[in-house]
Amino acid sequence: MREIARPDPAVCKALATYGVATVHEAQGRIGLLASYMRPIYSGKSIAGPAVTVSSPPGDNWMIHVAAELVKPGDILVVAPTSSCEDGYFGDLLATSLQAHGVQGLIIDAGVRDVATLKQMDFPVWSKAIYAQGTIKASLGSVNVPVICAAQAINPGDVVVADDDGVCVVRREDAAKVAEAAARRVALEEEKRKRLASGELGMDIYKFREKLAALGLEYK
Amino acid sequence: MREIARPDPAVCKALATYGVATVHEAQGRIGLLASYMRPIYSGKSIAGPAVTVSSPPGDNWMIHVAAELVKPGDILVVAPTSSCEDGYFGDLLATSLQAHGVQGLIIDAGVRDVATLKQMDFPVWSKAIYAQGTIKASLGSVNVPVICAAQAINPGDVVVADDDGVCVVRREDAAKVAEAAARRVALEEEKRKRLASGELGMDIYKFREKLAALGLEYK
Amino acid sequence: MREIARPDPAVCKALATYGVATVHEAQGRIGLLASYMRPIYSGKSIAGPAVTVSSPPGDNWMIHVAAELVKPGDILVVAPTSSCEDGYFGDLLATSLQAHGVQGLIIDAGVRDVATLKQMDFPVWSKAIYAQGTIKASLGSVNVPVICAAQAINPGDVVVADDDGVCVVRREDAAKVAEAAARRVALEEEKRKRLASGELGMDIYKFREKLAALGLEYK
Amino acid sequence: MREIARPDPAVCKALATYGVATVHEAQGRIGLLASYMRPIYSGKSIAGPAVTVSSPPGDNWMIHVAAELVKPGDILVVAPTSSCEDGYFGDLLATSLQAHGVQGLIIDAGVRDVATLKQMDFPVWSKAIYAQGTIKASLGSVNVPVICAAQAINPGDVVVADDDGVCVVRREDAAKVAEAAARRVALEEEKRKRLASGELGMDIYKFREKLAALGLEYK
Amino acid sequence: MREIARPDPAVCKALATYGVATVHEAQGRIGLLASYMRPIYSGKSIAGPAVTVSSPPGDNWMIHVAAELVKPGDILVVAPTSSCEDGYFGDLLATSLQAHGVQGLIIDAGVRDVATLKQMDFPVWSKAIYAQGTIKASLGSVNVPVICAAQAINPGDVVVADDDGVCVVRREDAAKVAEAAARRVALEEEKRKRLASGELGMDIYKFREKLAALGLEYK
Amino acid sequence: MREIARPDPAVCKALATYGVATVHEAQGRIGLLASYMRPIYSGKSIAGPAVTVSSPPGDNWMIHVAAELVKPGDILVVAPTSSCEDGYFGDLLATSLQAHGVQGLIIDAGVRDVATLKQMDFPVWSKAIYAQGTIKASLGSVNVPVICAAQAINPGDVVVADDDGVCVVRREDAAKVAEAAARRVALEEEKRKRLASGELGMDIYKFREKLAALGLEYK
Repeated sequence: MREIARPDPAVCKALATYGVATVHEAQGRIGLLASYMRPIYSGKSIAGPAVTVSSPPGDNWMIHVAAELVKPGDILVVAPTSSCEDGYFGDLLATSLQAHGVQGLIIDAGVRDVATLKQMDFPVWSKAIYAQGTIKASLGSVNVPVICAAQAINPGDVVVADDDGVCVVRREDAAKVAEAAARRVALEEEKRKRLASGELGMDIYKFREKLAALGLEYK
Repeated sequence: MREIARPDPAVCKALATYGVATVHEAQGRIGLLASYMRPIYSGKSIAGPAVTVSSPPGDNWMIHVAAELVKPGDILVVAPTSSCEDGYFGDLLATSLQAHGVQGLIIDAGVRDVATLKQMDFPVWSKAIYAQGTIKASLGSVNVPVICAAQAINPGDVVVADDDGVCVVRREDAAKVAEAAARRVALEEEKRKRLASGELGMDIYKFREKLAALGLEYK
Repeated sequence: MREIARPDPAVCKALATYGVATVHEAQGRIGLLASYMRPIYSGKSIAGPAVTVSSPPGDNWMIHVAAELVKPGDILVVAPTSSCEDGYFGDLLATSLQAHGVQGLIIDAGVRDVATLKQMDFPVWSKAIYAQGTIKASLGSVNVPVICAAQAINPGDVVVADDDGVCVVRREDAAKVAEAAARRVALEEEKRKRLASGELGMDIYKFREKLAALGLEYK
Repeated sequence: MREIARPDPAVCKALATYGVATVHEAQGRIGLLASYMRPIYSGKSIAGPAVTVSSPPGDNWMIHVAAELVKPGDILVVAPTSSCEDGYFGDLLATSLQAHGVQGLIIDAGVRDVATLKQMDFPVWSKAIYAQGTIKASLGSVNVPVICAAQAINPGDVVVADDDGVCVVRREDAAKVAEAAARRVALEEEKRKRLASGELGMDIYKFREKLAALGLEYK
Repeated sequence: MREIARPDPAVCKALATYGVATVHEAQGRIGLLASYMRPIYSGKSIAGPAVTVSSPPGDNWMIHVAAELVKPGDILVVAPTSSCEDGYFGDLLATSLQAHGVQGLIIDAGVRDVATLKQMDFPVWSKAIYAQGTIKASLGSVNVPVICAAQAINPGDVVVADDDGVCVVRREDAAKVAEAAARRVALEEEKRKRLASGELGMDIYKFREKLAALGLEYK
Repeated sequence: MREIARPDPAVCKALATYGVATVHEAQGRIGLLASYMRPIYSGKSIAGPAVTVSSPPGDNWMIHVAAELVKPGDILVVAPTSSCEDGYFGDLLATSLQAHGVQGLIIDAGVRDVATLKQMDFPVWSKAIYAQGTIKASLGSVNVPVICAAQAINPGDVVVADDDGVCVVRREDAAKVAEAAARRVALEEEKRKRLASGELGMDIYKFREKLAALGLEYK
């Protein structure tokens, strides 16, 4: 699949700023990838359209095919068709993707050359760090819907990734979710100030009555 | 439970200096939480009285109740009643706890906003980093005995946490354990010097005879 | 076993430079330890002859025996005879080994005092970070073949370890593998430049024909 | 969602006869749920249309809603929105579903009362057996697309389950897949006879030439 | 600890009849051991006073000490002080315990000789089946409070175990919990009949109004 | 490797009778495969020479090659070169191996068609039950030393497998181990009688003095 619809880059940029936890809440607590998806180094926050790769276990051939279909700002999403920790991806593929403007990689499998990837500042969220090599023997698919770490991701959906993990936002919902996230951030900012001044959440959120109604007792 | 007995702050401070491995040894190799409890960032060493929260799975309401019962120097300990990786805790709750002098959080579940928590220097030891939101629907208990990551923790017990993990010391044993830890540290200091100079543990600890008696042979 | 044959130090040094992923590929994708073997801190790359320890679960006595058999440049490899996460190793043992020139530790079990080990710059790759103490009650063996994290390691084999994990190279193959790795690095360097300039792997590796033959279609 | 399209019952019956491994192969090795999905007792093989439930973690309310939407021959598919092992389902719910002709349950969470479920002959494939109770506090959805144990399942898709695990077949592909499976079974039957008589797969499948071409050597 | 208070045998017998899921609910959803505790063979349901053993990892000596303190109807509960899968227990120990009337074993570690244990009809709930031998080198404790598979168990507490797992009931609450369980069973019996006749849980439990109030819609 | 040395069939038969736990003890507690290796159905006890297969992850081609090298009484041992749960083996391969007298399969990966394998009475010990298909694309090796589930196994070594798991005995040690196991069984038989009559292990093994010396106290 050569051509996919992509979301508004400004919306992606905003979603990267809000981060995974806020975006996940803003869209009604959906879209979060499994907790085993961890960044290979900390401190990055990115968001961009998914270019998806469905790959046989232990076979990274399709990533090379994907490399000719990416556009600046994209995020590569790789999902093996069967559970696998092999090291599908290393510094050469990262060099190629980075040369074409790809922001990073989400892979429900292993990654290697992580010291170099960190030097290059090419962020990866993966299931494992593992040097095990892969083969190039079978076809897979690029830019098809995939299941990656327990979430369905379509090509062009927005992937948001930071130190908290990875969240997917449907392309058609991205603008709306960004707005909801913005409102949430504004609201939280005000609460943060009150909480920082020592005011209690019990009072700010008016929990006392509800908890008392449920039978909360102090001893 | 509003009022709990707390240990001597000076003892807590000492235990934080000795660290988890030494404290665990000094009290006879008990009290260590499961190895899956890891810090969200490295380099912190804290110790303080536990304010405990027993919470339904996926429900963080009781943490807000706990926030009004904490005192400066406390460490919040959260244990769901059923295994759970959801993100019970984020930067807003941390802001509130930090405003009241809480040193950090031990949670047998997930945590989120970890990049912000690191910026705030609010350390957390958790089972997972996961943005999954929690609800506020059911009561739990604050300052009751809990089982957290395979250890029983009572309110007021001293929790010690550093890069090696987390250890609990009964409140009534804390002073005694701190003394034992101090002796151990002094003893180790002398051994460290001898080992650093190249002397062998085999000689320092006089292992040769015992091992020979058990049948150790060199070939 | 007192005396073991050791590989050429220059070869070890070269293998450390090439790193785990390259060495693993250069020797035909063998020798990689399980993916759960992770460094306690990042950024180190070492290679050296294995001094092996086969130890009962939860008993670290034999590490003291090994400490008198090591030589500068060695890497200690510890494998319990049954699955174990206990903290076999801490800063005192590290002080002793470092005094004798040991480069680091590979242990299919737990390690503790990790903050101090990082300060000392004594790298460890382990299955767990866990303060749980071990006993000194039973004999094991030093410098015998062991199974460590799913790989067979013989005393004197070269262990290569970096942020990607750990790989073992048979002592007798080390020079040959280092040469193959050097060729691979040279080859990759040229490809890296072409990829960095935007050329596609599809073209550099001439994948288009093979993929078309297998039936790859673009839509 | 009250009304869903359902597949032909005869096709479902055929798919149950062929079983998970054959169906998975017949549709091109797709659709297999994660290997942790295991039957609570062995010896059952079922196939039928999925009635899907998307449920908050630890909340089984929506299963009661689903119970009024099922038809004879259906299979209930329950997927929590966040990883959960709680016991969503027991013998009372099974009694209700069985009264309405439901064949069994696929649940990416826990189940309880398993001894009674076996007596009732109500088969379940689950992630865990766990008595932990769930609450009835939040809404979810019935008959929406879900992600269950790493596969996307739509309402009305055919779920096939036996001792090998669980596989999903798209409703619109079911007839075609059943035919392909029938052909595969016929083909395998003939091969089974030849293999049972001692003939080698190497000869039946003509592997010798291909392997020799790849360099296979006998020593 | 030689003498412990034991619960009323009639109460234990009743709790065994009600089973783990019902007892867990009847006491307010507490006391359930971790889901990894599985029976070595299915179909048993037992309940009885816990004789507890706290044991060093990989050391089963204390089980022999416990064997002289048991009484008919007891259930042995073994908890290592550090996570361990070794095979602490086999057919000889079972022969001894069975001769003294012990009903079964709950062990947060491994067990072996499982084929013989099944023949003897000596049920075990364990974390693993593993033949790995243990040593007899260190002291532990018998009849002290232990943490077993994430629950605190005191000597004399009632342990209930069946195919759903294991639940602990405080000795002093046992009679009260048995009554609550009896009420629950009676209530469920009536509901089971209504559900078996095809009546819906939605109507029996009057869920329609509550769900409508939360916004449930049918499409 | 066409020809391998095989152990005495009478010794294998004896080792199967003694079983995994006894054999493991009789050879000094070595040779036990990881605890995740479980039988697909219970009640079998086999022992025989290993025909080993080293296979790429997700590729079962080499099992067909092995099928022409087996002899009656052999046990096939399959070890992927990288961690894998795919279903390498099903009823067709089992039919072929059974036709040639193979007793069973040990595989550090997945297996499928388990209902049929049970009907055929072809026992398998595996890491997983999983229908995921494998490819036939790359060479591996037959009858080379492999690492299978954390143990080194050489072709011709005796593999012993029963409900407790799997143990390997070096071919050259098999007769000696069988004798030691026979002695152990005889010794245990006598102890079993004494224990069954109610005599305590504390007295039979004379533990009282040793435990008292270590400080055991009764309260």
